[in-house]
Amino acid sequence: MANPTACLLVIGNEILSGRTQDVNINFLAKRLGEIGIPLREVRVIPDVAKTIISTVNEVRAGFDHVFTTGGIGPTHDDITAECISAAFGVPWELNAEAVAIMEARYPAGEFNAARQRMATMPRGASLILNSVSAAPGFSIGNVHVMAGVPRIMQAMFESLAPSLEGGAPIISRAVYALGLKEGSIAADLEGVQKRFPDLDVGSYPFDRDGRNGVAIVSKGTDVADAEAATAEVTAIMQRLGLAPIQGEPA
Amino acid sequence: MANPTACLLVIGNEILSGRTQDVNINFLAKRLGEIGIPLREVRVIPDVAKTIISTVNEVRAGFDHVFTTGGIGPTHDDITAECISAAFGVPWELNAEAVAIMEARYPAGEFNAARQRMATMPRGASLILNSVSAAPGFSIGNVHVMAGVPRIMQAMFESLAPSLEGGAPIISRAVYALGLKEGSIAADLEGVQKRFPDLDVGSYPFDRDGRNGVAIVSKGTDVADAEAATAEVTAIMQRLGLAPIQGEPA
Repeated sequence: MANPTACLLVIGNEILSGRTQDVNINFLAKRLGEIGIPLREVRVIPDVAKTIISTVNEVRAGFDHVFTTGGIGPTHDDITAECISAAFGVPWELNAEAVAIMEARYPAGEFNAARQRMATMPRGASLILNSVSAAPGFSIGNVHVMAGVPRIMQAMFESLAPSLEGGAPIISRAVYALGLKEGSIAADLEGVQKRFPDLDVGSYPFDRDGRNGVAIVSKGTDVADAEAATAEVTAIMQRLGLAPIQGEPA
Repeated sequence: MANPTACLLVIGNEILSGRTQDVNINFLAKRLGEIGIPLREVRVIPDVAKTIISTVNEVRAGFDHVFTTGGIGPTHDDITAECISAAFGVPWELNAEAVAIMEARYPAGEFNAARQRMATMPRGASLILNSVSAAPGFSIGNVHVMAGVPRIMQAMFESLAPSLEGGAPIISRAVYALGLKEGSIAADLEGVQKRFPDLDVGSYPFDRDGRNGVAIVSKGTDVADAEAATAEVTAIMQRLGLAPIQGEPA
């Protein structure tokens, strides 16, 4: 059975301006592969309501799950929740459960209007709990709305993950050879890919601290296939007179 | 005059699987801001022809410039150049200038079919030179096709940049305060944003090595505006009894 698919929307001017180096894509790519909901597309978009609303509506129709990061804090540029409400055509209103969590968090008088904004969500949303800083994310339909701060996003994802129905985990097997050039293995590698059409066979040159070569990674849901493909690649490298090493280059 | 806009397509299964942490988005975000062609959207898409072709055609109509990274090597999973040809409806053929560069690079007999693939481009493309590993990228229309390996991509971008007509550089001014919470400054900050509608006023909490607080960044093309907005934010922080520090938190 085919795996369910995921799309990630990274919402935030700070990624597009280069102020912030994103690390959420990489975390979610790995974790979603592990639970068998492979990440098929990412979009990084600005804090602009029209763009957020139209993008959410486009991708929620095209993928089984949509994850968003960013834009759910208390300030004026945090407009994700309001935009998700507009995308789903439902009211944006105080969520009683979220209010209860946040009232318990703040001293009397400090749960002000800006902070109440963080408890204001699309009608019908279910909470994604936040063990780091209380203010929750939420799911509505197939859209899962999380914070942008990596530590908080990760806590939210782990709170959400058990409720997601995944497919077979995406596994990979790798082999590399020092001194290998992609142009020398390309023709043989294409043959491997054709014999294992259900795998993604990828070729990744590296050049670190003067050690250079190519790693070949076979990825899919079938461990036996990935190991058989990797054995073929290993044999190809040996025929080229190289010494293949199992795994990814350190 | 409004700045020209940029969209980046990161093409590659290795980013979507989490094998590789992308750093090209951040580099291009910064450099494009400096030359006044701000990055407005990023899409990370897989090595799937249909997806690449339809995405290129969508975004080249919506942005002044489209930059792509990845998928221009010699192996079977490097299909970007062929897909760009299909998107533009032009033949995918050997580029004489690229062939000359690569023939000069490889010893006799080593410029094999796989490597010739790297000199095969859309008809009408102009080269983007590669001072690192010879095999060039190319531009066609408003689409600029570069390698995925960061060091090579950066060399290609710097070779291309002088030919791009940018607008006013995007500049920013920042101020931060230790101990500040976003919820305490949100209401005042919205006022600053409203008084400077041409700026993006962003609020970024941080928590590093036990030092936590919020940085407020004012970004745009007008230095005087950014400095005036930052002076207002500084005064707001002082009224809250905090000690504002100019610049970004280290």
